Amino acid sequence: MSSVPNAVIAIYPGSFDPITNGHLDLIERGARLFDRLVVAVLHNEVKLPLFTAPERVEMLREVVGSIGNVEVDCFEGLLVHYAVQRGARVIIRGIRAVSDYEYELQMALMNRRLEKEIETVFLMASEANSFVSSRMVKEVARFGGDIGGFVPSSVARRLHSRITGAES
Amino acid sequence: MSSVPNAVIAIYPGSFDPITNGHLDLIERGARLFDRLVVAVLHNEVKLPLFTAPERVEMLREVVGSIGNVEVDCFEGLLVHYAVQRGARVIIRGIRAVSDYEYELQMALMNRRLEKEIETVFLMASEANSFVSSRMVKEVARFGGDIGGFVPSSVARRLHSRITGAES
Amino acid sequence: MSSVPNAVIAIYPGSFDPITNGHLDLIERGARLFDRLVVAVLHNEVKLPLFTAPERVEMLREVVGSIGNVEVDCFEGLLVHYAVQRGARVIIRGIRAVSDYEYELQMALMNRRLEKEIETVFLMASEANSFVSSRMVKEVARFGGDIGGFVPSSVARRLHSRITGAES
Amino acid sequence: MSSVPNAVIAIYPGSFDPITNGHLDLIERGARLFDRLVVAVLHNEVKLPLFTAPERVEMLREVVGSIGNVEVDCFEGLLVHYAVQRGARVIIRGIRAVSDYEYELQMALMNRRLEKEIETVFLMASEANSFVSSRMVKEVARFGGDIGGFVPSSVARRLHSRITGAES
Amino acid sequence: MSSVPNAVIAIYPGSFDPITNGHLDLIERGARLFDRLVVAVLHNEVKLPLFTAPERVEMLREVVGSIGNVEVDCFEGLLVHYAVQRGARVIIRGIRAVSDYEYELQMALMNRRLEKEIETVFLMASEANSFVSSRMVKEVARFGGDIGGFVPSSVARRLHSRITGAES
Amino acid sequence: MSSVPNAVIAIYPGSFDPITNGHLDLIERGARLFDRLVVAVLHNEVKLPLFTAPERVEMLREVVGSIGNVEVDCFEGLLVHYAVQRGARVIIRGIRAVSDYEYELQMALMNRRLEKEIETVFLMASEANSFVSSRMVKEVARFGGDIGGFVPSSVARRLHSRITGAES
Repeated sequence: MSSVPNAVIAIYPGSFDPITNGHLDLIERGARLFDRLVVAVLHNEVKLPLFTAPERVEMLREVVGSIGNVEVDCFEGLLVHYAVQRGARVIIRGIRAVSDYEYELQMALMNRRLEKEIETVFLMASEANSFVSSRMVKEVARFGGDIGGFVPSSVARRLHSRITGAES
Repeated sequence: MSSVPNAVIAIYPGSFDPITNGHLDLIERGARLFDRLVVAVLHNEVKLPLFTAPERVEMLREVVGSIGNVEVDCFEGLLVHYAVQRGARVIIRGIRAVSDYEYELQMALMNRRLEKEIETVFLMASEANSFVSSRMVKEVARFGGDIGGFVPSSVARRLHSRITGAES
Repeated sequence: MSSVPNAVIAIYPGSFDPITNGHLDLIERGARLFDRLVVAVLHNEVKLPLFTAPERVEMLREVVGSIGNVEVDCFEGLLVHYAVQRGARVIIRGIRAVSDYEYELQMALMNRRLEKEIETVFLMASEANSFVSSRMVKEVARFGGDIGGFVPSSVARRLHSRITGAES
Repeated sequence: MSSVPNAVIAIYPGSFDPITNGHLDLIERGARLFDRLVVAVLHNEVKLPLFTAPERVEMLREVVGSIGNVEVDCFEGLLVHYAVQRGARVIIRGIRAVSDYEYELQMALMNRRLEKEIETVFLMASEANSFVSSRMVKEVARFGGDIGGFVPSSVARRLHSRITGAES
Repeated sequence: MSSVPNAVIAIYPGSFDPITNGHLDLIERGARLFDRLVVAVLHNEVKLPLFTAPERVEMLREVVGSIGNVEVDCFEGLLVHYAVQRGARVIIRGIRAVSDYEYELQMALMNRRLEKEIETVFLMASEANSFVSSRMVKEVARFGGDIGGFVPSSVARRLHSRITGAES
Repeated sequence: MSSVPNAVIAIYPGSFDPITNGHLDLIERGARLFDRLVVAVLHNEVKLPLFTAPERVEMLREVVGSIGNVEVDCFEGLLVHYAVQRGARVIIRGIRAVSDYEYELQMALMNRRLEKEIETVFLMASEANSFVSSRMVKEVARFGGDIGGFVPSSVARRLHSRITGAES
């Protein structure tokens, strides 16, 4: 990846277990604002994700692969270390509920202390997607609810077969 | 149950592990507003409740059995599916702290998306009961604190013997 | 108005200066839950509303006149006094932002103290309307922004001619 | 101003009555993220500002004049109209307290509805500046408190002479 | 007033227009924690209070005069300047709603910057008084509502005659 | 411990796993306000702390041992029982984010119900320390981030060797 000097690289980190329409919304918004957007999947198997990190990366690539300046990657360890290594100056986070926002602010202040040159910017998902979370989507899917409006269709298929398989 | 046509059935869902005075307060308020109120115990043994679902139903019936239009039931799976099956048009939730309220809003928006004819209404417990939660009551009971002001007396007895039994 | 015994009358109070799609959304939801819904315009000319109370009542009637169990009225003084006089047992309020919600809770607790038989229930507008307020709509209209998506079309026309007239 | 095609122009709007260290902090952060940053002073004399719009523009220019890609301007009317006219794709807002943040979110959703191509991004001032507001600074200055830590020194001088003059 | 060396003097500032049961609750709590408590009435006639500062002081003295270590006083200007002049090390504030709390935090951080030796401590009124504000009490009184449960009886009498007088 | 009659003893409870600069900040503030401050380490091995209770006590003593009126102790069971046993009238809690604050308020109301003579007072850490939590510090340390600015240096050393040891 040969980036233009002074181009701003932004990182959008998360678990994406799995990607929802809310994440997708933010990725599209972020990609319009910065020269390059790296969607960075946190490889944290301790939290027992439903999908492995490679699976989550694959689902993301299926969904955002066609956006020219978006790249999907995977990272371990401290986010700011990864950001420095990638030459990123911006971390993108979505804001939804007030309680989220508070935790987000604490994280952002901590990250700024650890690497003061990296800025966290907060974007707002559209109202229709603002309340969708991976956790709720998985819960709805588990009980047979219709998740078609909350995740891309390719994700809905995988989620359905994973949950059916996992419980059979 | 043969309900009058157009009568509004409301569901008050929860874990009720165990019922507190805050829950009781809301049940009494809800029963005055709607034709029929179904107190619906979530059967979710994955969360390792202190009381089994049948025990929680039994405690609720002891406490609210005398209110004419209140019924206690138990459900599994998605709340909105259960609501549709019961012919309910209303889900009742109590609001307390701001952080609760945000999660409640997310849930309510999700439920509206899943079944748009079902409305979530929020009621407010009295000030005296607004901060009482099952979790705190169990914690106080566990360390020998006096829980008499937070749960009905029949529940206090059961809670005491369960905790003493569980730790002996 | 001959109401069925034990029918629940609900009041939805507000300034409605003017009615927005957010208000309309709540009126439709409230009308599905209770036997009768009184939309009660607060007659408070001290706040220098853009529309007089009779004008606000008229706009409301144009918009909600076709909903069978909805009535539009006007009141002065304490809301709970008006509620008692109308035989209402329920006050409906919409919840949006957290800061609103706090003020709403204080009001609701105060009203409960003043008349303990009257219950405040909180309903949630749809996401698309959750952020629309009369104040913002007036501000947008004043600067020539397009308010078509935020208020009923009959209201948009009146708002436009009032603001044009008021400033010419 | 001949801007490079596809360069991202961001607008940081406000009253700046007067500019504080909190505003300055955000301007510096914003200027590092976007190709061009327009600090846009809202010309709203109805709110009886302490400084006129031209005075506020002048103070801003003294303080941020040396940052290469920052421009100070003045606007009236709807922010999104001004943004379109300037070719801006981004509106920058600072986030501080939760109550601010809620109002900010409502504004941002409203602005998105009015012009869907314009994105609002939220940045975080440093902790040391997070609680400083123009209103508090003016109040402290009025009662003879030391405002040296809250505003640039050129602003402190003007603020002092304005308040002394205004009350003599 | 001959205070013991190192005795902690606390200030409880406010408008007290008029004192409510919520204020009284906090004064009693504060007086149990600190050696001396100064209830400090802000003399700010710009806000057009219903009662003059001397009247507010008088009402406070009637209500808290019997608490040994409580003194009622009146101040103008910056609170921290007054605190220094009185030898106080503590400012007491009540916390109620979240939105209050945010403004309170901003004020407290500002005051700490202005005088770093003065600490703001937050106390919590009892649940029953947590939602009572002077503003709401005046509004209820104005419309003939019963304010007996919200203010001391001597205050209720004065409030009633002031409002009746003011509007006759 | 022979305490002076009427001296106010305050308790500052917590897990302190490990102590951060935010805790230290609050201890110093608390010690200036009350006659005696007991820093009380919650002995709760169920939560699988990184450091044992004796280790946490030891670290605290190293850091605050030189403050004359501060004592470090360890407790099990209900906080209010421990407070009564120690003759304390005050519980000190730090307030940071809004979500913290809500949980804190619920705890404080519960504690007041259990022992009405014990008052919870809330203090505010300095802005620089307001976002530091033990949990975040441990997470940063685990991934090799620099925690020098967040905990006392003696704690940083122990934390480093514990984490290195724990994972080797």
